[in-house]
Amino acid sequence: MKREKDKVKIIPLGGLNEIGKNMTIIEYKEDIIVIDCGLKFPDEDMFGIDIVIPDVTYLIKNKEKVRGIFFTHGHEDHIGALPYILKQLNVPVYGTKLTLGIIETKLKEHGLLSTTNLITVKARDIIRLQSASVEFIKTNHSIADSVAIAIHTPLGVILHTGDFKIDYTPIDGEIMDFARFAELGKKGVLAMLADSTNVERPGYTMSERTVGETFENIFSSANGRIIVATFASNIHRIQQILMAAEKYGRKVAVSGRSMENTVAVATELGYLTPGKDVVINIDAINRYPNDKIVIITTGSQGEPMSALARMATSEHKKVNIIEGDMVIISASPIPGNEKLISKVINQLFKKGAEVIYEALADVHVSGHACQEELKLMHCLAKPRFFIPVHGEYRHLKQHKELAQKLGMNSNNIIIMDNGEVVEITRDSIRKNGTVISGQVFVDGLGVGDVGNIVLRDRKHLSQDGILTVVVTIERESGAVIAGPDIISRGFVYVRESEDLMGEAREIVKAALKECEAKKISDWASMKAMIKDALRVYLYEKTKRKPMILPIIMEI
Amino acid sequence: MKREKDKVKIIPLGGLNEIGKNMTIIEYKEDIIVIDCGLKFPDEDMFGIDIVIPDVTYLIKNKEKVRGIFFTHGHEDHIGALPYILKQLNVPVYGTKLTLGIIETKLKEHGLLSTTNLITVKARDIIRLQSASVEFIKTNHSIADSVAIAIHTPLGVILHTGDFKIDYTPIDGEIMDFARFAELGKKGVLAMLADSTNVERPGYTMSERTVGETFENIFSSANGRIIVATFASNIHRIQQILMAAEKYGRKVAVSGRSMENTVAVATELGYLTPGKDVVINIDAINRYPNDKIVIITTGSQGEPMSALARMATSEHKKVNIIEGDMVIISASPIPGNEKLISKVINQLFKKGAEVIYEALADVHVSGHACQEELKLMHCLAKPRFFIPVHGEYRHLKQHKELAQKLGMNSNNIIIMDNGEVVEITRDSIRKNGTVISGQVFVDGLGVGDVGNIVLRDRKHLSQDGILTVVVTIERESGAVIAGPDIISRGFVYVRESEDLMGEAREIVKAALKECEAKKISDWASMKAMIKDALRVYLYEKTKRKPMILPIIMEI
Repeated sequence: MKREKDKVKIIPLGGLNEIGKNMTIIEYKEDIIVIDCGLKFPDEDMFGIDIVIPDVTYLIKNKEKVRGIFFTHGHEDHIGALPYILKQLNVPVYGTKLTLGIIETKLKEHGLLSTTNLITVKARDIIRLQSASVEFIKTNHSIADSVAIAIHTPLGVILHTGDFKIDYTPIDGEIMDFARFAELGKKGVLAMLADSTNVERPGYTMSERTVGETFENIFSSANGRIIVATFASNIHRIQQILMAAEKYGRKVAVSGRSMENTVAVATELGYLTPGKDVVINIDAINRYPNDKIVIITTGSQGEPMSALARMATSEHKKVNIIEGDMVIISASPIPGNEKLISKVINQLFKKGAEVIYEALADVHVSGHACQEELKLMHCLAKPRFFIPVHGEYRHLKQHKELAQKLGMNSNNIIIMDNGEVVEITRDSIRKNGTVISGQVFVDGLGVGDVGNIVLRDRKHLSQDGILTVVVTIERESGAVIAGPDIISRGFVYVRESEDLMGEAREIVKAALKECEAKKISDWASMKAMIKDALRVYLYEKTKRKPMILPIIMEI
Repeated sequence: MKREKDKVKIIPLGGLNEIGKNMTIIEYKEDIIVIDCGLKFPDEDMFGIDIVIPDVTYLIKNKEKVRGIFFTHGHEDHIGALPYILKQLNVPVYGTKLTLGIIETKLKEHGLLSTTNLITVKARDIIRLQSASVEFIKTNHSIADSVAIAIHTPLGVILHTGDFKIDYTPIDGEIMDFARFAELGKKGVLAMLADSTNVERPGYTMSERTVGETFENIFSSANGRIIVATFASNIHRIQQILMAAEKYGRKVAVSGRSMENTVAVATELGYLTPGKDVVINIDAINRYPNDKIVIITTGSQGEPMSALARMATSEHKKVNIIEGDMVIISASPIPGNEKLISKVINQLFKKGAEVIYEALADVHVSGHACQEELKLMHCLAKPRFFIPVHGEYRHLKQHKELAQKLGMNSNNIIIMDNGEVVEITRDSIRKNGTVISGQVFVDGLGVGDVGNIVLRDRKHLSQDGILTVVVTIERESGAVIAGPDIISRGFVYVRESEDLMGEAREIVKAALKECEAKKISDWASMKAMIKDALRVYLYEKTKRKPMILPIIMEI
C-alpha cells in the first residue's frame, strides 16, 4: 500500500513564464535535487536593480534533504544566482568541467571558492543519492559541455533536457547522446521537462558550423582589422574565430573582462585550442598591420559599458574604431536590447567601420531547438508525462500543442508556474499546492532589501521627480518659524519655473493657515493637507504628479 | 551672375539618425516649404516624457518666409508635432483628404481647428508659391492617401518620396503614380530625398493584399470571436478586416479611442466602405453568437493602457477575453515594444484565447520599400543628387551604398544630420553650416520646460532613490537646534534598514560637528560636507549612490 503513494514532486522555482532564473526542484522521498540556479536580468521597470534571483525559502526549510545543485550548462540564466544562494545554503555543486570552470571564477569573486564543494562530472556519470540517482547526458547548446539531467527513481526516470539544440556537426565533434536518450525512452521515461525557447520557429536551428563558413568568407576578403563581438560563453563561436584567424594569418586579441575570463578558463581546460602564437595581448595589436589583426570582444548586446560600446565611443583604452575596420556582431538581440545594439551599430558606421550583423549575413545561429528538433527529442524520450519549461507562457502553450500533435494526451501535459508543485506517480500527474517562490532583487550589496515599495517609489520618482517641502514649527505654540521651503529635483527646470514654485509656496502657506484655523496640529494630518493641496495645484498647472515629501521640523 | 548663385537649401529638423519627428525644410529664395511635422516617442531613458517634438527656432526666426507645412501622410511620426508647432507658428497646412481628416481630429483636441488654415490637396495638384511650386504625387504606404512631394524650382526638382512602398495590388486600387515619377526623372530631378527604413531588407515588401488572404483563411475556420489588433491608421488593413467579416457573415465592432476616431473619419471621408449593417456598436456584441463577431482594436504594440491590453487583463468594460476567442496581432513590434507585446500575448494565451502573430502567420506586411523597390524609385527619378532620409545612420549609410551600386557617384550623395544645411545649385551639392535644431520634450502641459538636467535627476532618482537630510540651525549661534532628520524614498526598505539609517544620522552629526570645529558656516560648504560624508558611507555599505539632498533651515 505504501508504494502506491510513492511520488515524485517537481517544483520549478524559476524559469517558467519568464526568460531567466532557471531553477527546478525534483524531490523524491529523502532527496531534493536542484537543477540549475540562474539569475534574471531586471525588467525595464525594475529601476536600479542589478540582477534578480529566485526565492529559495523552500530549499532552506528543507535543507537537510537538499543533495546538491546539479548544473546543465554555464550560462548566466542557469548559474548566475549560485553565489547568492550558496551564502544561504551551502550544498554540493555538480557540473561538467567547463561549467564548473566558469562557476569557479564566479565563486572566487564572491570569496566562496574555498567553502564550496565542487564535484566535476562528465556525460554518462551517475551520482547515487539516498533514494534516487542523477545521470548526466550529453547535449548540444551555444556553450560547450552542456548536458541533460536524468533523475532515476523507482517510479521511473524524470528527464530534464536543459537548454539544447541538435547539431550534427558540432565544433568539438561531440554530438548529442542520441543513443542514451533513445535507451531511456525504450526503458520508459516517466516525465520529461523540455526547453521551449524556440518552439515558435518551424524547421531546424542551423549548425554552429555555418557561422564558421560566414566567418571564413568575411575573413578571406577583409582588408583591415576584424573585430568580432559575441557572447563570452560561446566557446565554439570563439574557437571558430580563432580557426578563421589562423587560416588567414591573423593574430587574435581579446577585450572585455568576461571575454578575457572565459577565454582563459576555456583554454586552460582545453575547450579552446588556439594555434601556436595566434593569441596575442591586446597591448600588442599595434605591432602588426591592421589586416593581420582580429579582436574578439564583449558587447554584442550593445551594453553601454562593454568593450565594443567603448570602442565605438572612443572610450576604450586600447582600441579605437578607425576607417576600414570590419566589425561583426555575432549574436541576436535579446528582446529589449534592440535599441542599444542599434545605437552601437550607428556609432560604428559613423566612425567609418563596416558593420556586419544578423540582418545582413549569417553571423549567428541560435542555441535552442526549433520545432523539428523538439519533435525528435519527444520521439526519442517518449515520456509518459510532459512539462514544457524554459519559456514564457506562449512558448509553454505552444510546446504543449506540439506534444499533442505528436500524439500525446493533453491530460498528460501540465503547464506549470513558478512555485507550483506537481506530483507524479507511476500513472498520474497532478498539481498539488504551492511553495514560497518569487523574485529576490539584488541591488549593489543588498540582496532582498529592495522590495516592491522601494521600486514603486523609484518609478514614481523617475516619472515626475520629487518636491520636498520643509517647515519648522515651534512645539509649544504650533507657530511656523521657518519655511515653508520647497526644493524640487527632476520636476521642472526651476529657473524657468519661478512663478510656479512661488505659487506652490503660497499654496503650502495657505494649507498651514488652514491647519491653524482648524486647530489641526498632529503632523500626519498636517502633512496630508500640504500634500493634497500641492498635488491638486501642481496637476492642474502641469498635468504632472511628482512625489511630494512634506517634512515638519519641530523645535 | 546672380543666377549662378541660385541655390536650394535643404535643412532636416528631424527624422535623420532617429526614427520619428520627421520634418524637413526646403528653402528657395523667398519660400520656405516645410515637409511634415512629426513627433517621436520618448527613448527609455527619457523618464516621464510624453512625446518629443522638433525644435523649430529656425522657422520662427524666418516665419515671414514659411509658406506652409506640407504633409506626405497621416502617421504620428509625420503629423504628431503639428498642434505644438502651430501654437508657435500659425501657417497654412496642406495635405490630402485623409491626412487632413486625421489632423483635424488632433487640432480639435487642442482647440486649434478654428484658427488653422487647412488646405486639402489631391495627387498631381500643384501649389504655386512665390519662387517655387509644390506638387503632390501618389504613393503607396501603410496608410491611405500618402503622397510624395516634388518642389519645382528654376534650378530643378527637389523630390521627397515621403514614406512609401510599391504595391501593385493596393486595396483601394490606387497604384503609385509611376508615370509622374518617370516624367520628372526624364525632365531631370535635381535632388531626391528618399525613405531608408527598409534598406536592410533584400527583395520586395509584400502587397497589403496578402494579409487579406491570411485573414480569409483564419476567418473561414474560426469558431469563436475574432479580435484583430492593428494600427488605427492602417485603413487598408481595417478595410480588409471589414471585407473578410462581411464574407463570413460576421458583425464588426471597434474598440479603442484612436481606432474609433480613425474609423469614423475614414468612413465619413469614404476611405472605409463597410458593407451595410456590418459595423455594430461595441455594446451590441452580446446580441450575436460569438462566431458572428469581429472586434477591431488598438493595442497591437502591447501598450499597457490600450484596449487589447485591457481585454487581456479583464479591465476592459465591454470585452473580456474568453476561451475560444481568436486574437490576431496584425502588426510588427516597433523596436523597444517587444516585451510589452509578449506580455499581452502571454496574458491572452492564459485566458484561453488562440493568438496569432507575426511569428506564426503572415498577418502583417511593412509599409516601407525594401531594396528592390528603392532601386525602382532611384531608376525612375534618376536624381542628380541624393540625400537618404527617414532612418538611423545605419540605414542612411546603406541607402547611400545602394545608390552607389546603381551607378551614382559617391560625391553626389550626402548623409545629413538634423540641423545641417545642404546647399544645392544646378551642378553642386555641399554642406554649409547648421541651424538650431534638437528635441523638445513634452511632459504633461509643459513643452520644453523639462531639459537635460531634469532628465538627469529623474534618472538618478530612478536608480537609487533619494535621501533628504534636514537640519534646523540658529542663525546667530550656528547651533543645530533640530535634526538632522533623514528621510529616504526609493533607497532601501527602511524598516529592515534601521541600523543603516541610524548610522547615517550619526555620520551627518559628525559632519556638522566638523563644520563647527572648522568654523565652516556658509550653507553651501556645510551641505557639501554632509553630502560627501553620507555618499562615501552609503556607497561603502550598500554600493549604491542615492541622490542626497541636504536642506538647512535657519531660524
